[in-house]
Amino acid sequence: MYQFINGGSVTSAKGFKAAGIFCGIKKRKKDLALIVSSRFCNAAGVYTLNKVKAAPLLISKNVTDKDVPVKAVLINSGNANACTGEDGYKDAKFTQEYCADKLKVKPENILISSTGVIGVKLPLPKIISGIDNIVNVLSEKGGEDAAEAIMTTDTKKKSFAVKVKLSSGEVTIGAICKGSGMIMPNMATMLAFITTDAEIKKSLLYKMLLNSVNISFNKISVDGETSTNDMVIILSNGVNRIEVLENSNDEKVFQEALDAISIEMAKSIVSDGEGATKLIEINVTGADTQEDADLVGKSLANSNLLKTALYGRDANWGRIMSSAGMSGANFDPEKVSISFDDHEVLLPNFKVVLNEEIAYKILSKNEYSINVNLNGGDFSSRWWTCDLSENYVKINANYRT
Amino acid sequence: MYQFINGGSVTSAKGFKAAGIFCGIKKRKKDLALIVSSRFCNAAGVYTLNKVKAAPLLISKNVTDKDVPVKAVLINSGNANACTGEDGYKDAKFTQEYCADKLKVKPENILISSTGVIGVKLPLPKIISGIDNIVNVLSEKGGEDAAEAIMTTDTKKKSFAVKVKLSSGEVTIGAICKGSGMIMPNMATMLAFITTDAEIKKSLLYKMLLNSVNISFNKISVDGETSTNDMVIILSNGVNRIEVLENSNDEKVFQEALDAISIEMAKSIVSDGEGATKLIEINVTGADTQEDADLVGKSLANSNLLKTALYGRDANWGRIMSSAGMSGANFDPEKVSISFDDHEVLLPNFKVVLNEEIAYKILSKNEYSINVNLNGGDFSSRWWTCDLSENYVKINANYRT
Repeated sequence: MYQFINGGSVTSAKGFKAAGIFCGIKKRKKDLALIVSSRFCNAAGVYTLNKVKAAPLLISKNVTDKDVPVKAVLINSGNANACTGEDGYKDAKFTQEYCADKLKVKPENILISSTGVIGVKLPLPKIISGIDNIVNVLSEKGGEDAAEAIMTTDTKKKSFAVKVKLSSGEVTIGAICKGSGMIMPNMATMLAFITTDAEIKKSLLYKMLLNSVNISFNKISVDGETSTNDMVIILSNGVNRIEVLENSNDEKVFQEALDAISIEMAKSIVSDGEGATKLIEINVTGADTQEDADLVGKSLANSNLLKTALYGRDANWGRIMSSAGMSGANFDPEKVSISFDDHEVLLPNFKVVLNEEIAYKILSKNEYSINVNLNGGDFSSRWWTCDLSENYVKINANYRT
Repeated sequence: MYQFINGGSVTSAKGFKAAGIFCGIKKRKKDLALIVSSRFCNAAGVYTLNKVKAAPLLISKNVTDKDVPVKAVLINSGNANACTGEDGYKDAKFTQEYCADKLKVKPENILISSTGVIGVKLPLPKIISGIDNIVNVLSEKGGEDAAEAIMTTDTKKKSFAVKVKLSSGEVTIGAICKGSGMIMPNMATMLAFITTDAEIKKSLLYKMLLNSVNISFNKISVDGETSTNDMVIILSNGVNRIEVLENSNDEKVFQEALDAISIEMAKSIVSDGEGATKLIEINVTGADTQEDADLVGKSLANSNLLKTALYGRDANWGRIMSSAGMSGANFDPEKVSISFDDHEVLLPNFKVVLNEEIAYKILSKNEYSINVNLNGGDFSSRWWTCDLSENYVKINANYRT
């Protein structure tokens, strides 16, 4: 039992304050965010698998890998502090230490995160004076400002919260995220920060976060790229003294709510994809194994040819078949059926029942689903992607020139 | 020792005739090609790994898998005869039989190949009357017409030949190919047909073809898609009575020539890639294993973000690092150095030595190379790709509408 809160954010969960300010990394827009909890938090994180990892990511991973409590998350946009070598690592470490000092905690109580241009040194003095300022404007209504301050090429703030009814009372999950291209003109990345006032042990927190990430952020594609800075963090401060216990019904309920807010964030990232005009859900069913289902879904979500066809509102089921075929999944092509929303276009044995007019209407909507039934086993996989337009090329070709 | 022949084609090799005509599958353009050898040929083929395979491909594979001689290859464009079920298979079989009958050989002496729209029934009567006509216009100068007749969205005919000096005399390798997008609006694909008047045993022919394909057609990417109809065929008719023996120096010499003509074909496909404005060679060196080298090369060749940057002439080395990092290859990011042609842009330890002006000049050329040295082991991999422009999206979005 959960319910989305209108205008909710990371500060919707009790005991969290946040702020977002301009400190001078970008030209004009907000570029520094801070989320602080009144109580120390249990924290868990999921990080990019890219071999090239940004310095702040390494530092934050080092924190969540250990069993130390977390007080705050400091995030800057406009500079990824990735591919910056030893100097970049020292700079990141310094911001962590400086922020810890200001909040009167230890460095390892602070998570840090960066997003923006790769390979450029962090403008340390600007961030330092930014930290001096931001600690003075933290507020229980600061979630939206924080959401704004972590944006790079995003065209919309991404901020969410849900209320969750547990057996002994109500808790709240809040979240902000950013992401548009997976990487953008050296702009790195997808970031998500989730807060909750429920009390949750670190190990359970991590387990639930992994579950949610696997069916949300790990099932979206704008352009098939994984960045150097991707991270999803969850903080539990237990301020409302309601604990979610492992293997309880509350765990299930909380997981459902966490799934929902994570999927909402993931969808908000895809629908704000660079140049995107549509949000498309891809449902693969009837696969013999989970891996087969995932392979087909991923291949479709990443297919340039399919995504350009969808941009052109072209019910090009041949590209779906071909993309599924090259996915590496095992299935019998003759058994496949395909539909757009509930309009069937292909039945088994390559029986084409596509009605171009109906399909065109569906493909003209802002959101619709593509359903591919392999008609084999019982495994399925759900993905979200966007279409590929000329604007994707424009945005990414003309960034630095 | 080999030399490219100006205006060469499949009919440059002795004993081969060819023709390309219009039979009515397309609206106006040539759409049916036939290559016939005076003597029966040894034949070898390499076929798509896509799980969804076109009917003609299955039939041809069945021929080259066995030890039967080949007399001719019949190719139509405008219709892929893929995803057409049992009827499509029967249609393909019928064209093979009809063509065999006309040439007074057995069906299994004929290879067939199709390229074009997926999921549409083959217009059998048109092809039948096309076969009636095409057998009457076969000529030793027909290679270019055949090259034209296999085009789909290609903007240029692709036709090549090389003379090869072997120990006991000169032989010729001729070739035609097509390909633009890996798949195009339900247009399937990359096809290549190679002829030689040298005498080569089937097993050796296959081994040499695999070698060449692996460093040419398997190292190019327009959009990362593999089609349902991809095939590369080589025919050896031995007309000039010069045999290439296994493990001889002639084998080496012939292999080099076959590599050269295959690479030339592969490059012609990429530089004619949908919407492409540049042909880019990617050299990955210093990898610990061959797999690592290939993974990095493939990831770069397929990266939308890198390819849009290259379209914008943006020396965006961060995207190269990030794409290498997500490739799955094992390497130390701090050791990597990168250059465009011979202009170094990144040295180990993330030392940026990029000169924007020089880089812009290089990235403005029609052809240049990107060189990524992982500075680890001794393995390397060479790939070719094109840039990604708005035109790729236009071509692929607006096909059927």
